[in-house]
Amino acid sequence: MERLSVSKATLGRLPIYLGMLRELPPDEYSNISATTISKKLSLGEVQVRKDLAAVSGAGKPKLGYVTQELIEKLEEALGIKSLTEAVLVGAGRLGRALLEYDEFRKYGVMISAAFDCNEQVISLNGKTEILPMNRFEAYCKAHSIRLGIITVGEGSAQVVCDLMVQAGIAAIWNFAPCKLEVPKGIMLQNENLALSLAHLNNQLKNQDQEEKNGRKGV
Amino acid sequence: MERLSVSKATLGRLPIYLGMLRELPPDEYSNISATTISKKLSLGEVQVRKDLAAVSGAGKPKLGYVTQELIEKLEEALGIKSLTEAVLVGAGRLGRALLEYDEFRKYGVMISAAFDCNEQVISLNGKTEILPMNRFEAYCKAHSIRLGIITVGEGSAQVVCDLMVQAGIAAIWNFAPCKLEVPKGIMLQNENLALSLAHLNNQLKNQDQEEKNGRKGV
Repeated sequence: MERLSVSKATLGRLPIYLGMLRELPPDEYSNISATTISKKLSLGEVQVRKDLAAVSGAGKPKLGYVTQELIEKLEEALGIKSLTEAVLVGAGRLGRALLEYDEFRKYGVMISAAFDCNEQVISLNGKTEILPMNRFEAYCKAHSIRLGIITVGEGSAQVVCDLMVQAGIAAIWNFAPCKLEVPKGIMLQNENLALSLAHLNNQLKNQDQEEKNGRKGV
Repeated sequence: MERLSVSKATLGRLPIYLGMLRELPPDEYSNISATTISKKLSLGEVQVRKDLAAVSGAGKPKLGYVTQELIEKLEEALGIKSLTEAVLVGAGRLGRALLEYDEFRKYGVMISAAFDCNEQVISLNGKTEILPMNRFEAYCKAHSIRLGIITVGEGSAQVVCDLMVQAGIAAIWNFAPCKLEVPKGIMLQNENLALSLAHLNNQLKNQDQEEKNGRKGV
């Protein structure tokens, strides 16, 4: 089966379509048009058509989409029926906040285990198991883990990153505020939360400045 | 003073330039060229020139930048000398993880207070004060707060958002996984952590698929 390449913006809207379609009374909506979907969600029709085309091709003229088929295509694109298992290293406050975050499953990923070297943290586990680091590599290999999340501090992030690569992980989501080195072919995505807030702050300052200039101009 | 508009990508690199420049021995580097900066940081020279031009104009031929002046321009662009105060509502695990996150200050923002309606959380405060919600509006007005962070659950996010707008907040960073309604002129930035992970997972699946197809082709 060929995988379709879906942009991040489209991907972000797929759970919205899916949630709405699942709640429709099935006897009233065996079919649904892109126009109806766009009205129900207050989204632009061009955008809706483009998003749905990326996962399911175009709807049929007059009939639109077969609702049940569209639901299945959306579930498939999101990987909901076959969740990808991820592991997390660093079960401090941020790590545990991510473990508690229920949204990942809606997007096809579950964090199946977390690891830490702190004994106190390990005994604190909630619904996801927190395991000691010496079990990391064996766990990843036994579960064929390809996706890893780094939530340790700056000081140990590179060591954890290297362990992940050695354990067969191919894509790393890094929250530590530092630059990590990965071998060619390993995907690295840095999450810089401070930068997101700084960017918002910058936009706010620019807006304030424009307003000030505007007032001066009057 | 005119504010320069700095892209998010450039903004993300400014602390890297600043950190490097601050560690230079001042007697050796009263001036520094973009070429030297790019070599020291393993960044492309074109990118370095563009980034620095956005905060400080072009360097002088042969001389480059006056190091101390460039440091000051970077600090100014990042707002480090006059930190913007932000407030956070929802001091659960994610909220407290953000309160502990030291990186915000490097980007010109400090979370000066957090609010929650849970008495137990309020008594747990660490270095940032956690206050009861009934003090929210007065605090924001007294401190002229313009920047708010929502880390409550989906169920109370809109209520908190409305309270923020009422208290004079003009830019909101929302972590709750839901669509919020804000009046015109209020900036809203949604942080969808699940989507970042899903996007990485999707890229990984695409890469696996390409490799599979490649092997078939041989």
